[in-house]
Amino acid sequence: MHVQIRPWEILKKLIALEDAAEIKLYLHELTSENIAGAISHIDNDEKAKLVTLLQPEDAAEMMEDIPWVQAVKMLEDLNAKEAAAIIAEMRSDDQADYLAEMDQTDAEAIMIEMEVDEVENIRKLIQYDSDTAGGLMITEFLSFDEDNTVDFVVNELRHYSDKYEQYSLQYLYVTSDGKFVGVLQMKDLLLSKATTRLSEVVLRDALIVKDSESVTELISFFDKHDFYGVPVLNNTEELVGVVLRKDIRETEAEIANIEHLETQGIVGGEELRTMPILLRARRRLSWLSVNILLNMMAASIIAIYQETLTAVIALAVFLPIISDMSGCSGNQAVAVSLRELSLGVIRPFEMLRVWIQEVSVGIINGIVLGTLIGAGAWLWQGNIYLGLVVGGALAINTVIAVSLGGTIPLFLKKMNVDPALASGPILTTVTDMFGFFLALTFAGMMLKQTG
Amino acid sequence: MHVQIRPWEILKKLIALEDAAEIKLYLHELTSENIAGAISHIDNDEKAKLVTLLQPEDAAEMMEDIPWVQAVKMLEDLNAKEAAAIIAEMRSDDQADYLAEMDQTDAEAIMIEMEVDEVENIRKLIQYDSDTAGGLMITEFLSFDEDNTVDFVVNELRHYSDKYEQYSLQYLYVTSDGKFVGVLQMKDLLLSKATTRLSEVVLRDALIVKDSESVTELISFFDKHDFYGVPVLNNTEELVGVVLRKDIRETEAEIANIEHLETQGIVGGEELRTMPILLRARRRLSWLSVNILLNMMAASIIAIYQETLTAVIALAVFLPIISDMSGCSGNQAVAVSLRELSLGVIRPFEMLRVWIQEVSVGIINGIVLGTLIGAGAWLWQGNIYLGLVVGGALAINTVIAVSLGGTIPLFLKKMNVDPALASGPILTTVTDMFGFFLALTFAGMMLKQTG
Repeated sequence: MHVQIRPWEILKKLIALEDAAEIKLYLHELTSENIAGAISHIDNDEKAKLVTLLQPEDAAEMMEDIPWVQAVKMLEDLNAKEAAAIIAEMRSDDQADYLAEMDQTDAEAIMIEMEVDEVENIRKLIQYDSDTAGGLMITEFLSFDEDNTVDFVVNELRHYSDKYEQYSLQYLYVTSDGKFVGVLQMKDLLLSKATTRLSEVVLRDALIVKDSESVTELISFFDKHDFYGVPVLNNTEELVGVVLRKDIRETEAEIANIEHLETQGIVGGEELRTMPILLRARRRLSWLSVNILLNMMAASIIAIYQETLTAVIALAVFLPIISDMSGCSGNQAVAVSLRELSLGVIRPFEMLRVWIQEVSVGIINGIVLGTLIGAGAWLWQGNIYLGLVVGGALAINTVIAVSLGGTIPLFLKKMNVDPALASGPILTTVTDMFGFFLALTFAGMMLKQTG
Repeated sequence: MHVQIRPWEILKKLIALEDAAEIKLYLHELTSENIAGAISHIDNDEKAKLVTLLQPEDAAEMMEDIPWVQAVKMLEDLNAKEAAAIIAEMRSDDQADYLAEMDQTDAEAIMIEMEVDEVENIRKLIQYDSDTAGGLMITEFLSFDEDNTVDFVVNELRHYSDKYEQYSLQYLYVTSDGKFVGVLQMKDLLLSKATTRLSEVVLRDALIVKDSESVTELISFFDKHDFYGVPVLNNTEELVGVVLRKDIRETEAEIANIEHLETQGIVGGEELRTMPILLRARRRLSWLSVNILLNMMAASIIAIYQETLTAVIALAVFLPIISDMSGCSGNQAVAVSLRELSLGVIRPFEMLRVWIQEVSVGIINGIVLGTLIGAGAWLWQGNIYLGLVVGGALAINTVIAVSLGGTIPLFLKKMNVDPALASGPILTTVTDMFGFFLALTFAGMMLKQTG
């Protein structure tokens, strides 16, 4: 008999047995995905127990693999000493992020349990907005005064190899009187004589970023430059941290995920089913309730034309089809616009250009879809006029839908409104109104024709 | 007067003036986004001219910034010699990707113009599927036999510094009789005596991947391990390439983008408005035509109940609202499922767990939305029964929609069908059918009640 053992079943057993050594080994084997899955399936008591069974450095590592909101909760449920031990094992930017997220009192209580200079560092980092270089940088880097020799650096690295284990040693940084001078690659150290002063081999025109630079600028920077990381300077030219390319890439991916979830109406850009039910319901409702009002507004068009509808009751079958299909065509255009905006291939002011490119496709697709639905109506009711009405309405509304779908995201972006959340509802409301109006108006004309 | 100069206007002028030096400077200043935007706005003749005005290495660099499909087209429009000069300046994995994408005859013509050992390398790379380690790896790496000394390596690096400029020198690799032995960090070379043999300092238990490993496994690997790159071995333990973390991250981001575009009905996961109109129309239609058939199928429910509809014509106003709102609620659930699947927080077989988590939210939201629409109907028509009919139908259909929306992606994934493209249409068709059925059945019951 084939029994599929789930990772969390094993984890639950190990937690119940309080087998710390086995747990450590087991988590080491699992992929990040499986760790995330396993943690999501154990209850809060088991989570609390698990954290106490893990060494602080292993707990910190595990928290990198699980969704942010879960990690924050796990830390909040610990006492200050336990939380401090784990946070002490984290990288500087994560330390700042977690402590900034928590309740101020809890954060202060934890920081009391941590080393003074580490806390000082964290306080500096917390000052920065999370979407700037300062908020994304790490402070684990090595810098040396330019008067030092290569030999000095080599001895430092040799004697403090444990201490420097966790530091990325791709680049070293060189300062003079505390101000940033330049960058040193390991390769350059290797190829230099022992007595060479750093001032002789340092790369002085190294690219840097200011601590105030935004995420968008950083994303552009790493698109353009193939570096592993870039030094961050403050207003007084001091080296305050390093932004790693991989962290910017992760941030970029998070932004893209959030955007996608928002286009589907997940406000806040993230929902995990382990969140409290009322929170999930409330957040979804915040978008749905706006939608239902817009829907009722659009459907009121139908209410105005009730007479026509009574006369051509068959039309009631086609109104939802016209509404849905126009929405589909429009959303395809929205998706392409959001994509092209993010690639930089179009700019928000280029609404005319986009409109022209969409109309051409809209006309073709409108004709095809209009013919399909018109044929369907004709075959069903044996009435060519009904076919012309619904076919014509859908054809024209398809052109309207792609025109709006293509341009609304650009317009919203120009107005500095987030296009991901708002484009869909605006699009479907307006295309619904047009679609209903066209279908019912044409039907009215048809009634006059046929008497 | 404020005039906004677009980057492509400047570029067009420079191309017309054939000012190669200025063009090079200008492109160097632009962000990758602006380059993509500028290239998208010049016509094919200007593109061809631009490429001839650029040095091959600058042309290759430019192509990294523009969308893939545009770069391929630009290469195809060149003669073999020109294309070969540019491709020769590219990284090995890009070389293989471009040549594999082109028409075989064109590719062969280009390869004749390139250096023999470079072509040999490319042919090896082309053999691999693009979604395996072999298809994603680069062959620019440095390896040395373990019998060599540190001194030898240092001298190699010193004398061939130009040649090794483009090689990432984070790690060096060590082999023995052609087989992979281990990894060497620059730091370890730096801290070793000149006469030390590589065999003494090499890290022998280095993690590696096989050339056949899939993208998914590589994504998991770099989630778990914080490396800059990982060596790739073939079946006979030879070192054949290196997979860089940043390339896997880029691939991961591309996959996420494709998934999002597919949920919006962009088949093939990419559309640029610079693509030919007929191609864009055809690809959008391939999804829309399936949708319209599904829509007609769902709307036929209404056709069956035409009698009821004639009696309660006001219902025709609410059918599109019920359809759209159920779709919205359902799509929220779909988005969360796709997200949780990608995070690893749920597995495809967990449909029951997801259903329970969705039903709870669905009941709350269904009651709220049903009350809203019911109140709207009551206020409009002064008929409490109509309010109960549409309110009840929407409430129940919301629960159905979130149940389906949450579970359909898991079901499709279990069946090895891509959930991104198919979830939406299946969801909206089934929820429409239920929604229409519920509303019209309740209305029929209402008619019997009120006579």
